[in-house]
Amino acid sequence: MSNVFGRILRLTSFGESHGPAVGGILEGMPAGVEVDFERIGRQLARRRPGQSKLTTSRPESDEPEFLSGIFEGRTLGTPIAFVVRNRHARSADYEHLRDAYRPSHADYTYEQKYGLRDWRGGGRASARETVARIIGGELAGMLIPDVEVTAYVHAVGTEELNRSWEELDLGRIDDHAVRTPDPAAAERFAALIEQARREGDTLGGQIVCVVKNVPPGWGEPVFDKLQARLAAAMLSIPAVKGFEYGSGFGGSRMHGSEHNDIFLPEGGTATNRSGGIQGGITNGMPVYFRVAFKPVATLMRPQPTINREGKRVEIEGKGRHDPCVVPRAVPIVESMTRLVLADFYLLQKIQAHGQT
Amino acid sequence: MSNVFGRILRLTSFGESHGPAVGGILEGMPAGVEVDFERIGRQLARRRPGQSKLTTSRPESDEPEFLSGIFEGRTLGTPIAFVVRNRHARSADYEHLRDAYRPSHADYTYEQKYGLRDWRGGGRASARETVARIIGGELAGMLIPDVEVTAYVHAVGTEELNRSWEELDLGRIDDHAVRTPDPAAAERFAALIEQARREGDTLGGQIVCVVKNVPPGWGEPVFDKLQARLAAAMLSIPAVKGFEYGSGFGGSRMHGSEHNDIFLPEGGTATNRSGGIQGGITNGMPVYFRVAFKPVATLMRPQPTINREGKRVEIEGKGRHDPCVVPRAVPIVESMTRLVLADFYLLQKIQAHGQT
Amino acid sequence: MSNVFGRILRLTSFGESHGPAVGGILEGMPAGVEVDFERIGRQLARRRPGQSKLTTSRPESDEPEFLSGIFEGRTLGTPIAFVVRNRHARSADYEHLRDAYRPSHADYTYEQKYGLRDWRGGGRASARETVARIIGGELAGMLIPDVEVTAYVHAVGTEELNRSWEELDLGRIDDHAVRTPDPAAAERFAALIEQARREGDTLGGQIVCVVKNVPPGWGEPVFDKLQARLAAAMLSIPAVKGFEYGSGFGGSRMHGSEHNDIFLPEGGTATNRSGGIQGGITNGMPVYFRVAFKPVATLMRPQPTINREGKRVEIEGKGRHDPCVVPRAVPIVESMTRLVLADFYLLQKIQAHGQT
Amino acid sequence: MSNVFGRILRLTSFGESHGPAVGGILEGMPAGVEVDFERIGRQLARRRPGQSKLTTSRPESDEPEFLSGIFEGRTLGTPIAFVVRNRHARSADYEHLRDAYRPSHADYTYEQKYGLRDWRGGGRASARETVARIIGGELAGMLIPDVEVTAYVHAVGTEELNRSWEELDLGRIDDHAVRTPDPAAAERFAALIEQARREGDTLGGQIVCVVKNVPPGWGEPVFDKLQARLAAAMLSIPAVKGFEYGSGFGGSRMHGSEHNDIFLPEGGTATNRSGGIQGGITNGMPVYFRVAFKPVATLMRPQPTINREGKRVEIEGKGRHDPCVVPRAVPIVESMTRLVLADFYLLQKIQAHGQT
Repeated sequence: MSNVFGRILRLTSFGESHGPAVGGILEGMPAGVEVDFERIGRQLARRRPGQSKLTTSRPESDEPEFLSGIFEGRTLGTPIAFVVRNRHARSADYEHLRDAYRPSHADYTYEQKYGLRDWRGGGRASARETVARIIGGELAGMLIPDVEVTAYVHAVGTEELNRSWEELDLGRIDDHAVRTPDPAAAERFAALIEQARREGDTLGGQIVCVVKNVPPGWGEPVFDKLQARLAAAMLSIPAVKGFEYGSGFGGSRMHGSEHNDIFLPEGGTATNRSGGIQGGITNGMPVYFRVAFKPVATLMRPQPTINREGKRVEIEGKGRHDPCVVPRAVPIVESMTRLVLADFYLLQKIQAHGQT
Repeated sequence: MSNVFGRILRLTSFGESHGPAVGGILEGMPAGVEVDFERIGRQLARRRPGQSKLTTSRPESDEPEFLSGIFEGRTLGTPIAFVVRNRHARSADYEHLRDAYRPSHADYTYEQKYGLRDWRGGGRASARETVARIIGGELAGMLIPDVEVTAYVHAVGTEELNRSWEELDLGRIDDHAVRTPDPAAAERFAALIEQARREGDTLGGQIVCVVKNVPPGWGEPVFDKLQARLAAAMLSIPAVKGFEYGSGFGGSRMHGSEHNDIFLPEGGTATNRSGGIQGGITNGMPVYFRVAFKPVATLMRPQPTINREGKRVEIEGKGRHDPCVVPRAVPIVESMTRLVLADFYLLQKIQAHGQT
Repeated sequence: MSNVFGRILRLTSFGESHGPAVGGILEGMPAGVEVDFERIGRQLARRRPGQSKLTTSRPESDEPEFLSGIFEGRTLGTPIAFVVRNRHARSADYEHLRDAYRPSHADYTYEQKYGLRDWRGGGRASARETVARIIGGELAGMLIPDVEVTAYVHAVGTEELNRSWEELDLGRIDDHAVRTPDPAAAERFAALIEQARREGDTLGGQIVCVVKNVPPGWGEPVFDKLQARLAAAMLSIPAVKGFEYGSGFGGSRMHGSEHNDIFLPEGGTATNRSGGIQGGITNGMPVYFRVAFKPVATLMRPQPTINREGKRVEIEGKGRHDPCVVPRAVPIVESMTRLVLADFYLLQKIQAHGQT
Repeated sequence: MSNVFGRILRLTSFGESHGPAVGGILEGMPAGVEVDFERIGRQLARRRPGQSKLTTSRPESDEPEFLSGIFEGRTLGTPIAFVVRNRHARSADYEHLRDAYRPSHADYTYEQKYGLRDWRGGGRASARETVARIIGGELAGMLIPDVEVTAYVHAVGTEELNRSWEELDLGRIDDHAVRTPDPAAAERFAALIEQARREGDTLGGQIVCVVKNVPPGWGEPVFDKLQARLAAAMLSIPAVKGFEYGSGFGGSRMHGSEHNDIFLPEGGTATNRSGGIQGGITNGMPVYFRVAFKPVATLMRPQPTINREGKRVEIEGKGRHDPCVVPRAVPIVESMTRLVLADFYLLQKIQAHGQT
C-alpha cells in the first residue's frame, strides 16, 4: 500500500526514473470539478530540473498525458490516470552503478529488500517519482480553491532567514531561482549553492510552508491528526530528515504559560504557537510547518564505497545532478500539502450529517 | 479511519477519558505467539500517572482485560480486543469546562468539527487514549523479540543532554523518575519540573528513541517510507510538535561530502547520519530519532479564555495534571515504534516469494 | 483486515464464542446521531437463540455494553466500542472436539491456517460473532432512517413461498417464529423444522431481503458496485452458499428484450429485473436479493469423522444447536444490509461537491 | 476506493471506454517474479471482441504497454502500471445517447450519482474496463503457478449442460467459440446465440469456475471469507446477477445429514458440497462456483426509453455489440479468481510466523 497516499482522495503513484514513464491515478475526486491544466503545468515547471544554472541540466519536458476521469474539461468522479514519459533518461550515465552501492542512496537497501533492483538512475527511489505528487496535489488543490498553500526556502546549508513567515512578502518567492522571498538572503543562498557546485559538493536546507484560509474542523483525532498526516507527507519526500509545526522544537523549550495561545473574543488566538492545529484539528488560524532536507547524496567527485561482493570501489557522480534540491522541492512540499488538506476537506463533508 | 494505525498489523483505538473505558483491537497478529502479560503491565505502569511526585496524582490502576484472540496463553491469529476501565475519573473536576474552551486544548476544535463534544477531561482528545497504544505496541513487540527499542528523555525545557545516545548507558534510563540515563542531567531536569509545579506552570521537552538489531530491508518505498510511518506515529501522540531522524535538522546544515555514510567492506557504514534508513528502508544500522513535546496546556493557575458565546472568562486547572508529561511519554514513544516496526516486519514477509 | 467491514463506516468485529466476550468497534459514524438502544435490543432478541422451540435453548441475554463514542444519548463522531459477554458458554459440551474435526465445520481449516485453534464451540468461526454485526448494522441504520430494510424466510428445505415479495404483507414477518409473512407457508416450514429436530437432523433455506426508499445514486462503479458489496456482506455470514439480486439466476435464462426495464416518463421503470441497481448504482426502485443458507453442520446424531492423527472417530453434537438457523438469520441479513447502505450513503456525500 | 481490488495484492483500475485508454496499476506484487507477457496476450485475446461471428466485430488489438515495475523480465516489487489504448472507439455511434438513457444500462444512475457522465459507449460503466482485470489477474496468476483456475460456459439462455464439472474434459473448453467443453452443448448454445443475433436480441447465461490445487489454509475468517471475496469479485463484473459456490442454492434444499462432507482418513472429504471452503478457508479440495449473467441490455432493435427531460423517446443499438457476452466473460471470471487467490496466498505468508 506504500504507493498510495490519502484516505478518500487517494493518489497511487508508479514509475522508475529510467523506465518508460512515471505517473499515477488520483481516485476519490468528486465529479464536476473544472480542471486547470495550465496550473499543473506551471507547478511541474517549478519542480523540473534545468530551470536555472542552480539546478540540474536534464531538460525534461514533463508533459503529462491524462488518460481518464476527465470529460469536456471536468472531472467525471472516476479515477484520473496520468502518465509522464521519461524521455531524456540517459541510462548509460548509470552503468557504473550496476554493481556498486552509492553512499547514502537506496541502492543497497532496495537490493536487500527485493533481491534485485533497477540500478538505472535510482529506479523507484529516484526523486523523479515526485512528478506524480505534483500532478495529484494540484488536482487536489482544485477542490479547495480558497485555501492558500505557500512554501519557500528558509535555509540553505548554514545560512537561514532571520525573519518569520509573517514578516515576509510571500508573493515574491519566485522572484529568484532559489525561491526565497528575501532578496538579500536569496543572494547568500545562491552563492553557497554555486560554491558547492564548483566543489562537486552538495547542500541541504529547510523549507517553510504556510497554509491560510483553512476553515476550523479539518483533521481527524488520534492517529490521523492533521500534523501526523502532514509529517507523513513530508517525510515521504526524498531527502527529508525532519518536520516541525507551529512552535516545533523551539516550543519544547518553553513553559506552558508562554506557549498557550489565548482565545480572543473577536475570534482567533492572540498567538499561534499551535500552528493552527489543536488536538489534530484546525482551529481556523494559519497552519505552518518547517521541513529539513539533507544534502543530495550524489557528489560530482570521487567517493569510496563497496560493490556487491563487498569489495572497496570508488565512484563519482555522472550525468545531471543538483547541488541543492531545496528550491525544486518547494512545489513538492506545496502539492503534498494540498493532497493532505483536500483529503481532510472530503472527510469533513461526512460530518455534515450530524450538524443539521 | 483515523482511529486505526498500521497496514497489516492494525491497532484500532477507542475511548473517551471519562467514558466507561478506553481500549482497542489489534488485528493482523499471526497465530501462535506467546503473550507476555507482565511485559504489558510493566509498560503500562511506566505510562501511568502518579508514579512519582513528578507526575499527576491520579491513581489509575490501568489493568487491561483481554476479551479475545488469545487462547491458552498464545495468539489465535484472530483480533485481540482489550479494555481498560476508567475507574478514577472525576468528572466534577471538569464541570467548569462544559462551556469554556481551554487555551491550546482541543475543546474548541472538537466542537467546531463535530458540533458537540464530551467536555469531561478532554474526552477523546485526552492522552488517556495512549493506554491502547501501549498495549497494542507491546503485543507488536512480541512479534519482533530481537529488535531493541529504547527511548529516553533528552531534554526538559531549556535543559538538554550534551551527549548522544551512543555515549549513554541506555540500561540506566529507569534509574530516575525523569527517565534520563545521565544521573546529573536527571537531577537538573527534575529540579526544573519541580519548580514549574510550584509555579503552577508546565514544561515541554524532547525524547530520543534508538532501535537496534533491525534487519536490512524493512520499510517501503515512496509514501510508506519507514521515516514517514515513524513521523506519523510520533506526531499522532498528544503534545508532539516535531520529529527528526538521523542527522535531522542539523543534517540540513551540512555538505554532502560530510553527510554521506560510507559503506565499509566489513559491513555497515562508517557514520550513521542516515539513521539506519536509506530510501525509506532499513540498512541494518541502528535507527534513531528525536521527538519534541510542547509544554502541557493545562495550568494550575488562572488563564483568560472565551466561552461558547465568545465571552471572555477565566479558567484554572483542577484535578490531576502533570507539570511535564515527557517522562511518561517515553513508553508511548517506544510502544508506537514497536507498532511501526512489527508492521514492516510482516510486510517484508511477503517479499519472501521472489527471493528463492 | 478480514475483521473489518466497510469503507467509511467501518465495523471491526472481535471475539470467540467461548472467550470472555464478542463485540466490535464502529468507526466513521458522524457526530450528533441519537442512539436508539431499544432498537438494537429488539434486533438482538430476534437473533438470539432460545426464542422458541424452533431454535436452540441457549439462554443468552446478549446485553451490549457501550464503552465509547456516545455521550448524553448522541454519537460523538468517535469510535463506538461495544462488548457482549459470553455468559452462558458451556465449554464442557465441546471437550470431545478438542482433537476431532467436525464435518463441514471450520475446525480443520482453522487448524491448517493458524496451526492452533480455540476448539470450544467453534471459536471465532462460531455464528456468535454475528452479534457484532447486528449492533453495528442497527447503529448504521440510524444514519439512514428513511431507508426500509426488510428480510424474511423465503424457503426452508424443499418448501418455498410461491409468491414474490411484492405480493406479501411484509408487516407480518414476525407473526410466526419462522419469520415468513405467509401464515400457511409458516406452518409448513415449522413442521419441516420440527421433523428435522426429532430426527437429530438439520435444514437449510433461503431469505429474501427488500430495500425500499433508497435514493438514486448510491453505490460505486467497478469493484464496489452495490451488488458486489451486498454479495460480500451476505457470503460473509456463516452458512451462506449463494446470492442473487433482481432477476438473479432466473434472469440468466431470459432474452434482453424481456429482461430490460423500460424507463417511464412518470418516473421509475416498468419492471424491476435490475433489482433497483444499474451499473452498481441505485436507480431509486426497490433493491431486492435472495440468499441461500446450507443446513447447519452440527447434527444431534452420530457422524463419522477423523481426529488430528487422521484416525477415524465418531462424534455427535452436544449442547445447544438449531435444526434450522434461517429464521434467526433474518435480522443478520437486515443488519448487514444496513451496514452496506449507510456506508454508501456517506460515500455519496462526498459527491455533493461537484453538484453545485 | 471503488476502483481498487485486493488487500495486499491490489489492482487499481482506470479508464472510460471512449477516453484515451484503459489500464491499471498492480501493487503488492513481490519482486523477482518472471513475467509471461504471452500469457497475458492470450487471455486478452480470449476476452477481445471480434473473435468469432458470435461476438462483436469491434477489432480491438488490446496491446498492453507496461510502464513500470518490471525490469529485465522480472518484477521489481514496485507498482506495475499498464495502459491499453482505446484505438477503435467510434464515438459517433453513441451520439444519439447523449441525452437518452438506455434501458437497464448505467446511463441514468451515473447521471444521478455524478451530475454528469461520459455518454460515449458507457464510459466507465463499459465492460471495456475488464481489460485491466485480465492483465492484473494474469500477473497475479504468475504468483501461484500451481493453482489451476478453469472457467467455462455452463448455460446460455434456457439451455444448460446436464453434467457437472467433474464429468467434463476441461481441456476442451476452447475447442468451440462458445467455450463449453461439451461439443453437443456447444452447438446448441451457438444456435441459440445465432438466433438471438438475427432477431436483434440478446441472451444471458451461466459460467462455472473450478480451482484445483489450492492448498488448505487460504481465506480469512469473518468478513473476508474466501467465498465473500469471490462473490464480490464476480458481482463486480458487468452483467453478473448471481453467485453460488459448492452446493449453492441447491444445498439450501438439503438436510445436514446429506450435505455434510465426511473427512476421509486417507485425506480429503468423501463429497465436496463445501466447494473446498469451510469457515471461509480452503480445505484442500477443489473450489468451484457458478455465476449468472443477465442478457446484454443493448438491443439491435428499437426500444422505448426516456431522455433527460423525462420525455418518451425511442433508441436502437448502433455499432458493435454482442448478442451474448458469456463466452467472452470466461477469461474475466478466471482472471478475477486469480486476483482473489493470489491475494490470499500473500496474506497467508504472514501466518508463517507462528508456525515454527
